[in-house]
Amino acid sequence: MEEGTDNSIFIGTKPFMNYVTGVVVQFTTKGAKEVLVKARGKFISRAVDVVELAVKRFLKNKIQIKNITIDSEEFTNKEGKQVHVSTIEIILESI
Amino acid sequence: MEEGTDNSIFIGTKPFMNYVTGVVVQFTTKGAKEVLVKARGKFISRAVDVVELAVKRFLKNKIQIKNITIDSEEFTNKEGKQVHVSTIEIILESI
Repeated sequence: MEEGTDNSIFIGTKPFMNYVTGVVVQFTTKGAKEVLVKARGKFISRAVDVVELAVKRFLKNKIQIKNITIDSEEFTNKEGKQVHVSTIEIILESI
Repeated sequence: MEEGTDNSIFIGTKPFMNYVTGVVVQFTTKGAKEVLVKARGKFISRAVDVVELAVKRFLKNKIQIKNITIDSEEFTNKEGKQVHVSTIEIILESI
């Protein structure tokens, strides 16, 4: 799946249920076959929570996890220091 | 891999580098072929950080990620309320 498509949901600081609803809407209203849930750093735990709630509760028996990958990005922060941040990408697919 | 073997590293509140060192020791000193890194809740992000640092830096070209699974557990907390917590299990293998 390409980055930046409408099927990507990037987990951040919005209210938790916004993201769960986002996943549900992609699969139901928008008829997506796959949805990519992405997160960085401390939001990785939250991404897993969102996916678990969607798969086990809201879209139970309708979607499943297709693939999970983790990676890390390197960037220079405001203080000019080199920083690593971990990332996760979870691909969900309709069953 | 069975739970509770010596090859499991459960990520919690200890200093971050303890866990990275734990992974390295399993593969080097103890000669493990596989190591399981596990975490629950907010420690999931930390588990990913530990794995990324081990794979990309400390044991670069020596280990790789074999499999990643996420799940959730349900339990009753001290206040008698039913609570869900997400979990992650990352299996690392020597190359």
